[in-house]
Amino acid sequence: MLREQLSNATGKQVRKAIREREWTRTTHGLARSYVQANLAIVPEQYAFDFLRFCQRNPKPCPLLEVSDPGNPEMPITAPGSDIRTDLPGYRVYRNGALIEEVPRIEHLWRKDHVSFILGCSLSFDEILTDEGIAQQHLKEENGRIAVYKTNIECQPAGVFKGPMVVGMRPIARKDVARAIEITSHYPLAHGGPVHVGDGRDIGINDATKVDWGRYTPPSEDEIEVYWACGVTPQAIAMASGIPEMITHSAGHMFVTDIKLSAIRT
Amino acid sequence: MLREQLSNATGKQVRKAIREREWTRTTHGLARSYVQANLAIVPEQYAFDFLRFCQRNPKPCPLLEVSDPGNPEMPITAPGSDIRTDLPGYRVYRNGALIEEVPRIEHLWRKDHVSFILGCSLSFDEILTDEGIAQQHLKEENGRIAVYKTNIECQPAGVFKGPMVVGMRPIARKDVARAIEITSHYPLAHGGPVHVGDGRDIGINDATKVDWGRYTPPSEDEIEVYWACGVTPQAIAMASGIPEMITHSAGHMFVTDIKLSAIRT
Repeated sequence: MLREQLSNATGKQVRKAIREREWTRTTHGLARSYVQANLAIVPEQYAFDFLRFCQRNPKPCPLLEVSDPGNPEMPITAPGSDIRTDLPGYRVYRNGALIEEVPRIEHLWRKDHVSFILGCSLSFDEILTDEGIAQQHLKEENGRIAVYKTNIECQPAGVFKGPMVVGMRPIARKDVARAIEITSHYPLAHGGPVHVGDGRDIGINDATKVDWGRYTPPSEDEIEVYWACGVTPQAIAMASGIPEMITHSAGHMFVTDIKLSAIRT
Repeated sequence: MLREQLSNATGKQVRKAIREREWTRTTHGLARSYVQANLAIVPEQYAFDFLRFCQRNPKPCPLLEVSDPGNPEMPITAPGSDIRTDLPGYRVYRNGALIEEVPRIEHLWRKDHVSFILGCSLSFDEILTDEGIAQQHLKEENGRIAVYKTNIECQPAGVFKGPMVVGMRPIARKDVARAIEITSHYPLAHGGPVHVGDGRDIGINDATKVDWGRYTPPSEDEIEVYWACGVTPQAIAMASGIPEMITHSAGHMFVTDIKLSAIRT
């Protein structure tokens, strides 16, 4: 009931429900006409490297906004927000290892923290659905897609380097061209796919062995389509072993005030 | 003759001609199908602020690439380039004041220098011309437009804050809608205009008094159209009084290897 109410709510209303702990689960399907975002918080010392990394790799890291150091608000995409309380779940990484998952991070916040919010594909899942393009994994709540490391190297920046991570969605062959055309209009939600068809072309040698998420095999009339994935910066920050990074928990996104229609190019 | 040859050359060929001092004048009309760019070099200490400023103000500061500190190459947009020699002219600002204009900056280069290249409107001047949209100022070599400070405040970031600077082009009323539609497809070259018509709406109280460039009055069948201008970051860095900033000289741009067609959205 609350889910239904929040699915038609604004980004601001969803953030409020999360902040007041009325909503503590994934944000999948909430504030349906608003852009949702991945979160990455890094110490200021690494922020310039990380910002260059995002700028150089816009498909996996489509940057929506970067905070000022120590300021927990995102004044452009979500005025009045508090990044420490407005997501339903956070992951804390230290020295490249996941340490804990927590519902709030006020106790961890420091004045040298810089928050990055990056567009995520939840947004175009909504759009593909509206356009009548079916996706098997969306039939379940918390529907997860198959996520893989590839052999596509990101453009490095400072301490950050490593492979692009992609999400695979089986798409009906009759819909593939249209799905690509539609998503290409949303570069701030990863844009068009990076590959179509056999995953071995991009280093995915056994599709059943996912690195994250869950494998859904394509049915007979479907083909694999691979979009760049917002897990990339997390994977790369972990590989770099920087002393600290705080992110959203899987599916527990930051909901902005930006309308999906406003990021269409 | 050399101009004609270079007008059909690649970005790489133009950079070579400049580096070898075969070409020392403005880049207007050179490498016509390639993206030209504004340059801003700041000390690393200010680079994260400046990068956030660009990210927050994409109309005046459409970021094409940011270098690693101390690296004079732009590896993504211009592999093999050297930012210290590949522009025909540079301006050196110290503590907010223009100190000198120089043809090369090898002697000034330091390992804490970070280069930003930002899309410029020379690119869409080419495109508007190709589409048959006349612009009076392009009839002259080194054609300059009227450039003004406005009352539109940029989104601040760190030490950088101040008003947006715009360039005014008189456009035939019959062509205005099409000119807007075309330029809107090039967000990396300032995109669509920020204002159309009476400049007083954006704080330009006397159009004949330019802040930079030269005023061309609209003819009877023309109307003023204002696009965000790449002078903005220079004006703002000067106002902030940061100890050092090196830019291109007016019209002496950095020519990239990126095709204009590749930045169309």
